[in-house]
Amino acid sequence: MTIQYLAELAGTYFFAISGVLAIDDKDRNWFGATFTGFVTAIGGGSLRDILLGSHPLIWIDDIYFLYAILLGVVTSLVFFNWVLKLRKTMILFDMAGIALFTIVGVEKSLSLGVRPEIAALMGVFTAVMGGVIRDTLTNKTPIIFSKEVYATACLAGAILYLILESSVSRVENFLLSAGLIVLIRILVIRFNIELPSLKAKQ
Amino acid sequence: MTIQYLAELAGTYFFAISGVLAIDDKDRNWFGATFTGFVTAIGGGSLRDILLGSHPLIWIDDIYFLYAILLGVVTSLVFFNWVLKLRKTMILFDMAGIALFTIVGVEKSLSLGVRPEIAALMGVFTAVMGGVIRDTLTNKTPIIFSKEVYATACLAGAILYLILESSVSRVENFLLSAGLIVLIRILVIRFNIELPSLKAKQ
Amino acid sequence: MTIQYLAELAGTYFFAISGVLAIDDKDRNWFGATFTGFVTAIGGGSLRDILLGSHPLIWIDDIYFLYAILLGVVTSLVFFNWVLKLRKTMILFDMAGIALFTIVGVEKSLSLGVRPEIAALMGVFTAVMGGVIRDTLTNKTPIIFSKEVYATACLAGAILYLILESSVSRVENFLLSAGLIVLIRILVIRFNIELPSLKAKQ
Repeated sequence: MTIQYLAELAGTYFFAISGVLAIDDKDRNWFGATFTGFVTAIGGGSLRDILLGSHPLIWIDDIYFLYAILLGVVTSLVFFNWVLKLRKTMILFDMAGIALFTIVGVEKSLSLGVRPEIAALMGVFTAVMGGVIRDTLTNKTPIIFSKEVYATACLAGAILYLILESSVSRVENFLLSAGLIVLIRILVIRFNIELPSLKAKQ
Repeated sequence: MTIQYLAELAGTYFFAISGVLAIDDKDRNWFGATFTGFVTAIGGGSLRDILLGSHPLIWIDDIYFLYAILLGVVTSLVFFNWVLKLRKTMILFDMAGIALFTIVGVEKSLSLGVRPEIAALMGVFTAVMGGVIRDTLTNKTPIIFSKEVYATACLAGAILYLILESSVSRVENFLLSAGLIVLIRILVIRFNIELPSLKAKQ
Repeated sequence: MTIQYLAELAGTYFFAISGVLAIDDKDRNWFGATFTGFVTAIGGGSLRDILLGSHPLIWIDDIYFLYAILLGVVTSLVFFNWVLKLRKTMILFDMAGIALFTIVGVEKSLSLGVRPEIAALMGVFTAVMGGVIRDTLTNKTPIIFSKEVYATACLAGAILYLILESSVSRVENFLLSAGLIVLIRILVIRFNIELPSLKAKQ
């Protein structure tokens, strides 16, 4: 449990950094940067818990999540140009973040007694909705509307977790399902795979 | 009750289709389409229940609503070009959807003990907020900010329901109030009626 | 308590006006204007209470808040051109509004038992999130992403309130902390102060 907790904190930290990086192309102030980092890090999990009626939200109950976000923001601001150059490296952290948050979301939802289909959906929400809210607030079209396979990878991992749930241990399941998400993301980026677009032919 | 339940499921199905259709003008992947359909179908009712603190949300509690949405998305994707040509027909389904969702929203709110003014507001929210959230996520200006009479029709129906509540049976009230919404929408579209705009004259 | 209640009602009224004014540059109908005024006035407090799991929301429980909003919308619509010319005067009301809502948000959060860091954050949310939601719905980039010191003033007031909490009376603390927010806003506007921007130098 302590490993999952630390990993969730780390995921929050890296999501906060990716949130700040999302505003690099315009003049922005430190509050806007902090706000964006915060929303990216807690948006998905908060939406999940609000939809499920589960309170208190983890970052309201456990102050270390707020500190992890502030640390991520400070990291981004202090090492801004340096972090930007590391953007390709950041993709790795983002992968780890969405893989982890997907499975954490599935587990949390199942523990609240919802059906597997809803748990899978909530796993995907946990991973992607922070970014969706961030993109909406900053007037960008969220990444899940673009062609790259992103939420689909999370959904595949969530479904694998639910299939394996009764046959392997929780730790094995966590590693296998999160690993599938990372694997799909690596293959997608390496081979530039896209989902078929839905273009009207008229 | 079973008729209202089936009608609510049908409304969810048609709202999911209208959500997918809202993204036709750009390249979009199947996940984005599913997400948009989902948000359009459940956004209004979910926002109402979150504001009222009423849990669990119906689509979390009753899996058939998720299936209705998936069916709507599949319908849209399989018959994409065909559905696009039927867009004028879809307006009829949209009318039925908002009429139904408005009255369902008013009834649900009243059953939770709120005042009639709040119930009317929640009825309108139930009908229009799914579309507002969808438009916001896809970077469009929501339809309720444009001049066409849309939310106004829902508000009129909600108010009629509240006025008639103590004098006619629930089924009669449902039909009369929902009928008023459909009637206003038909007249608005037929005669191209617009609300007066608020243009500054300086 | 009755003074705070009246002041909160007044803040709601002025926030509703500022919401309607936010849509002046385009053709909009009365429903869109009402909706925007409503969202601006209740968005911040509602988000705070939803995040904290505190129900019922004040405007659902106390109908006078809805009436204050409707009065603000009617004021804006009836005196539209007149109110626009008073826009500089409106800045004063906006200042009073954000100062009041910040401290009300901090007090409400503390009364629900959260930590001071969370209470400060919730105070800022109460003051600024109504405007953020309004700007997002109308496809503008929220003001907190621009360079002007806005949310920062709220944060300073919230922190002062928490520092003074155990040493001065509640009324004194309210006046001092809210006064600091107003003072910072006046200085910022008078001397055109901006937060340092985060521009990548590459």
